[in-house]
Amino acid sequence: HENELKTILGPAHGKDKYIGNEFAGVVTGLAWTQVGGDILYIETSLTKGKGKLTLTGSLGDVMKESAVLAHQYLKANAELINVDSSLFDRWDTHVHVPEGATPKDGPSAGITMLTAMASVFTQRKVKKNLAMTGEITLRGAVLPVGGIKEKILAAKRANIKEIILCEQNKKDIDDIKPSYLKGLKFHYVKTMDQVLKIALLKEKVKSPKIID
Amino acid sequence: HENELKTILGPAHGKDKYIGNEFAGVVTGLAWTQVGGDILYIETSLTKGKGKLTLTGSLGDVMKESAVLAHQYLKANAELINVDSSLFDRWDTHVHVPEGATPKDGPSAGITMLTAMASVFTQRKVKKNLAMTGEITLRGAVLPVGGIKEKILAAKRANIKEIILCEQNKKDIDDIKPSYLKGLKFHYVKTMDQVLKIALLKEKVKSPKIID
Amino acid sequence: HENELKTILGPAHGKDKYIGNEFAGVVTGLAWTQVGGDILYIETSLTKGKGKLTLTGSLGDVMKESAVLAHQYLKANAELINVDSSLFDRWDTHVHVPEGATPKDGPSAGITMLTAMASVFTQRKVKKNLAMTGEITLRGAVLPVGGIKEKILAAKRANIKEIILCEQNKKDIDDIKPSYLKGLKFHYVKTMDQVLKIALLKEKVKSPKIID
Amino acid sequence: HENELKTILGPAHGKDKYIGNEFAGVVTGLAWTQVGGDILYIETSLTKGKGKLTLTGSLGDVMKESAVLAHQYLKANAELINVDSSLFDRWDTHVHVPEGATPKDGPSAGITMLTAMASVFTQRKVKKNLAMTGEITLRGAVLPVGGIKEKILAAKRANIKEIILCEQNKKDIDDIKPSYLKGLKFHYVKTMDQVLKIALLKEKVKSPKIID
Amino acid sequence: HENELKTILGPAHGKDKYIGNEFAGVVTGLAWTQVGGDILYIETSLTKGKGKLTLTGSLGDVMKESAVLAHQYLKANAELINVDSSLFDRWDTHVHVPEGATPKDGPSAGITMLTAMASVFTQRKVKKNLAMTGEITLRGAVLPVGGIKEKILAAKRANIKEIILCEQNKKDIDDIKPSYLKGLKFHYVKTMDQVLKIALLKEKVKSPKIID
Amino acid sequence: HENELKTILGPAHGKDKYIGNEFAGVVTGLAWTQVGGDILYIETSLTKGKGKLTLTGSLGDVMKESAVLAHQYLKANAELINVDSSLFDRWDTHVHVPEGATPKDGPSAGITMLTAMASVFTQRKVKKNLAMTGEITLRGAVLPVGGIKEKILAAKRANIKEIILCEQNKKDIDDIKPSYLKGLKFHYVKTMDQVLKIALLKEKVKSPKIID
Ligand SMILES: [Ca+2]
Ligand SMILES: [Ca+2]
Ligand SMILES: [Ca+2]
Ligand SMILES: [Ca+2]
Ligand SMILES: [Ca+2]
Ligand SMILES: [Ca+2]
Ligand SMILES: [Ca+2]
Ligand SMILES: [Ca+2]
Ligand SMILES: [Ca+2]
Ligand SMILES: [Ca+2]
Ligand SMILES: [Ca+2]
Ligand SMILES: [Ca+2]
Repeated sequence: HENELKTILGPAHGKDKYIGNEFAGVVTGLAWTQVGGDILYIETSLTKGKGKLTLTGSLGDVMKESAVLAHQYLKANAELINVDSSLFDRWDTHVHVPEGATPKDGPSAGITMLTAMASVFTQRKVKKNLAMTGEITLRGAVLPVGGIKEKILAAKRANIKEIILCEQNKKDIDDIKPSYLKGLKFHYVKTMDQVLKIALLKEKVKSPKIID
Repeated sequence: HENELKTILGPAHGKDKYIGNEFAGVVTGLAWTQVGGDILYIETSLTKGKGKLTLTGSLGDVMKESAVLAHQYLKANAELINVDSSLFDRWDTHVHVPEGATPKDGPSAGITMLTAMASVFTQRKVKKNLAMTGEITLRGAVLPVGGIKEKILAAKRANIKEIILCEQNKKDIDDIKPSYLKGLKFHYVKTMDQVLKIALLKEKVKSPKIID
Repeated sequence: HENELKTILGPAHGKDKYIGNEFAGVVTGLAWTQVGGDILYIETSLTKGKGKLTLTGSLGDVMKESAVLAHQYLKANAELINVDSSLFDRWDTHVHVPEGATPKDGPSAGITMLTAMASVFTQRKVKKNLAMTGEITLRGAVLPVGGIKEKILAAKRANIKEIILCEQNKKDIDDIKPSYLKGLKFHYVKTMDQVLKIALLKEKVKSPKIID
Repeated sequence: HENELKTILGPAHGKDKYIGNEFAGVVTGLAWTQVGGDILYIETSLTKGKGKLTLTGSLGDVMKESAVLAHQYLKANAELINVDSSLFDRWDTHVHVPEGATPKDGPSAGITMLTAMASVFTQRKVKKNLAMTGEITLRGAVLPVGGIKEKILAAKRANIKEIILCEQNKKDIDDIKPSYLKGLKFHYVKTMDQVLKIALLKEKVKSPKIID
Repeated sequence: HENELKTILGPAHGKDKYIGNEFAGVVTGLAWTQVGGDILYIETSLTKGKGKLTLTGSLGDVMKESAVLAHQYLKANAELINVDSSLFDRWDTHVHVPEGATPKDGPSAGITMLTAMASVFTQRKVKKNLAMTGEITLRGAVLPVGGIKEKILAAKRANIKEIILCEQNKKDIDDIKPSYLKGLKFHYVKTMDQVLKIALLKEKVKSPKIID
Repeated sequence: HENELKTILGPAHGKDKYIGNEFAGVVTGLAWTQVGGDILYIETSLTKGKGKLTLTGSLGDVMKESAVLAHQYLKANAELINVDSSLFDRWDTHVHVPEGATPKDGPSAGITMLTAMASVFTQRKVKKNLAMTGEITLRGAVLPVGGIKEKILAAKRANIKEIILCEQNKKDIDDIKPSYLKGLKFHYVKTMDQVLKIALLKEKVKSPKIID
C-alpha cells in the first residue's frame, strides 16, 4: 500500500516570439541553450513591502546574484532613473523568468534585469523590438558574454530589431555572416547607464502603477 | 538494542472524482502522472497574520514558485478581484495540495493556484464542474503545458464539464479523437485575467468568511 | 589520539498499550511499520508564546506537513471548537510523537493530530479507548490511508474499542475476517468536523490548564 | 602552493568519574557506547535573554529533540518546580554535554536533561551519587531505554550509588547478576515528576544564582 | 513532453586590464588560476540600511570570511579611516567580484577587500596603477599568500605599476628573474594600517557620495 | 564559450612564531596537525551590537561550539572577570583563527578562546610567552586533550615559555624526554577560573578600547 506516484504538472517548451512593450518591468533578454539560442523575458513586479527581493523561475545561483546586483546598483544609483533610493526599501521587488520549469543560470541576463527593474520602478516603457545580453558589475561596467551567434539568430527569428551588447562583444558580431544580421541594429555599450539611456523610453506605460 | 523501525503512516492512492464547488479557495486542476492523468485540488485557506505563504502537500520547488507567483501577482493586481492589496499583508495564505504523501512538481498548476487564491480572498464561488491547467507568469500571460491528452481523459472520468487551457494548447486538443471530447467545453485563454473572468462566479459561497 | 566513539543514548522499542484519556492533547493513532501495526500517541502541549509550532519525535516531512495542516485548519475554523482563533497566535503549540528515536512519516496521523490539538486548546477529554487514522486536507475532508489490516490488529492488541476511519477505508475493513473485528466499533467519516464530534467529549480533563 | 593541512585540536577520551553535586544544572546520565557504558554529564547554564535554547556537545537530532522536550515540558508545567513559567522566556538556556568532540545521540538522556534544567532554574542541588537514564515524553511519562547492563556497570565503576530508571527497565536489571548490583540502589519511575521528586533536593547549591 | 533544457546565460572569460581609479570602493587584486595569474576587481557599494553585508560573484566560504573580517576590522577600528564606527550599522555594504560566473575562493583578497571598504566608506581615491594581495587577520596583521610569481606577471601585463605584498612574501619576489620585475614597485607590509596608508589617497573621488 | 576557471586566491602555510602580547583579545593556542604541532592565534574583537557571535577561520562544528561555550560561560559568570554580564548583549564578539584557508576543528582551543574573550572584554593583557590547550565545559571544568607531545615541541620552537594544560594531561608531559622540556614552565589546571588567573594580567593593554 505504498506506491509513490510522482505527480508531474509539467511544461511544454518552445521558441518564443517577441511580445511587445506594453508592460512596465518586462524586458527581452537573449539566452543560449543546448539546442540553440532563444529569447526570454525578465518580468518584474512591485508590491508594497520592506525592500525584499523575490526570485522565481528556477534560477541558478549566478543568475540570482545578477538580480541582487541589479537591485543593489539601482538602489545605490537611484538618481540614474530619477527616483528616490528609499523606494527600494518601501517596495518588494519580484523577478520572474518564464518558463518556470526550465533551469536557468549564468550572468548574461544582468543588463536585462537592470533594465526591467529600472522600468518597473519608473513605469517607463522599454524601447520596442529591443533585446539585450550582458553581464553587470557593481561599478557600473557591462561585461561581455558568450553564445552571441546563437543568441542573435534567435533574436532575429523572434522579431527583434535592436540589440544591446557589451562593446567587447563587437568582435563576435563581426564574425557572423553579414546576411544573418540584416534588419538588426546593434548598440555596443560599456556602462550600465548607457544601457538605460538606450532601453528606457521617456514615455510611461498605459495606466502606470503609482510607485512612491 | 538498536533496532530502528521506520514507522510509516502512509497514504492510499486513487483516482479522484470532482467534489463540487461549495468551498471558497478550492479549485480543480489537472495533473499528469506516470500512470496517467488525474485531477487534483488546490486548497487554500486564510488566517489573520502578516502575509506569510505556507505551502504543504509535498510540493517541488517549481510548484512552490507557482504559488509564490500567483500570490504576488494577485497582490500586485488586487484590483482584478476588487480587493485591497493590503489584505495580502494582513492574512496568511496556506496552499495545500492533497494527497500529502505524493510528491508533486511542475508549473502547470499555476492558473489553478491563481484561481484558488482569488476565490479565497473574495469568498466567491468557482464555476461548477470546471478544471484547468496552465503555467502563469508575472506579466499576466498564461503559458501552455504538457500532458494534455492524459489530463483531458482524467477530467472526463472525474465528471469535469469545462476546461480552461492556454490558447497555445488548442493544437493538443485538436490532436485528440473528437469522441473522447464529447461533453467537454474548452476555454482557451491568453491571460490570467481571462482565467479569473471564466472561473470566478459573482456569487459568494454559503456563509462566507469575512476577509478584511 | 583521535578515537571517535559515538555515544548512543538509545531506545528500547516495544508494542504499546492504550494509556487512558486523562491528558488533554494526547490522542491515540494507528501506525503501520515493517514489523506490523502499532498504536502511537500524538502528544501536544501549549505554552504562552507567539503561535509557533514545534515538532519533535523524528518526524518526516510529510508528517510535519500534517501537523501544519491540522494547526492551520483549526486556526481558520476555530469556531468548530468554540475558541477564539487568536489563541493560535498567543500560544505556542508543541507536538511530540514518542518514541523519539524511531523515524516516522506519512500523512495518516492527520486526524489524530487534529484531535490532539483540538483537545489541548479546549482542554476537553478525548473519548476513552478510541484510536484513529486518516489523512487531512485544508478543505476539511478526511482521506483514506493504507495499512488498515495491520493497524486494526494492533489496535485490538492494545485494548482499543472504537476506531475512526475515512469512509473510503470501509472496504478495507470489509476485507478483514469478522472474528478479528470482534469488540471493535468503527466510525466512518468524511469530514474533519465529524472526527471532532466523535472524538472530543464535552467534559474537560481534571485540573484543566487555562488557555486564554 | 596549495597544501591544505587540516588542523586538528582534538580530544583525549577516557572513562569518567562521578564529580559530586556542587553545581546547579549539572546531572549525571548514563550512556552506551560501542566500547561499553560510561557516565556523562548534562550541563546547563542560564543567561538573561529571550528564552532561546542553545545546544552544544556534538548532539544528534534525536538528542536535540530531547532537550527541546525537556525545556518545553518544564515551561508548560512550571508549577512542578515552583517557578513562574515566564522564566523560560526571560532566560536563555544552554545545554552542553562534554566531551565536545564525541558525537552523541539518542533519547535516553531525556530525564537527565529534565533534571538538569529543573536544577538550574531552581538552583536546587541534585541528590549526591545519583545517575539516571530514560526517555521523556510531552505527556510526562518516562519510557524505557536500551543498554541497561553496560550503563549500570559503568555507573558502578564511576562511584554512582543510586540510579533512576523507567519501571519498564526493571526486567533488564533483573537479568543482571546480583553481585554486580551490590551497593547500587534503584528507583523505578513511571513519570517525569517522580524523577524530579527523587533527584532534586530541597537544598539550594552554595551561592545560588538569582533566577527571576 | 518533459524535455528539460538548461538555459545558460553564460560568461566570456578573458584577461583583464587595469581600469583606473575613478570609483570609490573599487580596488585591484591579484588572483592565481589554473591557467595563470590575473587581476580582479573588488567592487564595493553602500546603500542605507542596517549594516548588512551582501557578497556576490560566486565567492567560496573562505573568501566570504575575508569580507566579514575586513568589514568587522574596519568597524572595530573605524578611527583608522576617520569615520564613525556607527556608519557600519547604518549602511549596507555590498561586495561584488566580477566575473560573476567564475567561482573564486581563498584568503588572498583580504587586503584588497579591506582597502575597497575603506575607500567606499571614506569616498577617498585609491592610488593609481596599484594592485595588492595578502591575507588579513582580526589583530591587524597581514599574512603571506601563494601564487606570487603568476600574480606578478599578470599584474605587469595588466598595466599595474605598484604592488602591496606581505613582508613574508618578499622572498617570493626575490626568486623572480629581475627583468620580469622592471617597471614594478613593491610595498612590503606587516600590518593592515600600512596597507591603508599606502593605498588610500587623501583626495576624494569626483562627486563623492555622502556617507553619514 | 563555457570554460569555468576556478580562481584561487590561496594561502602560503608556515610554522608560526610567538608574536607578543600587545593586543587585547589575542591568545596563543597549540594545535596538532598531520605534519606536526604548531601554535595558532585565537583573535577576538568587539564591536557595538546585540550580542552576536561571529566565527571565521574555516572552523569546524566542534570548534565553533567551543566558541559558543566560552562566550556563554563568560556571560553566565561575568563576575569572574569583573564585568557586567549585560556587556555580552551590547557588544558583538568576533572570533577569528588565522590562517583562514586551513580547516580547523576540535575542542582543544577551548581555554584559548575563553582567555581571548576574557581579555578582549577586560582589555587586560595576556601573560607574555604563554600558550595553552584544553577543552572547556559549561560547569567550568577543563578537560584533557590529545597531541600533547607535538604541541609542546611546536610551542618551544615558537618561543613559548609557559604552558597551561589540564591536570589530566600531566601524564603526557611525564612521558616526554625531559631535555625537550627545558625552558618550559607548565601550569596544570582543573578549572576555567584557574586558567584566567594564570593567563590574564592585571595590567591593561596600551590604549585600551572602552568596553561599556
Ligand atoms: Ca522558450
Ligand atoms: Ca540577457
Ligand atoms: Ca489522486
Ligand atoms: Ca492544473
Ligand atoms: Ca511502539
Ligand atoms: Ca493515525
Ligand atoms: Ca567519557
Ligand atoms: Ca541518561
Ligand atoms: Ca579575468
Ligand atoms: Ca588580492
Ligand atoms: Ca601555521
Ligand atoms: Ca589551544
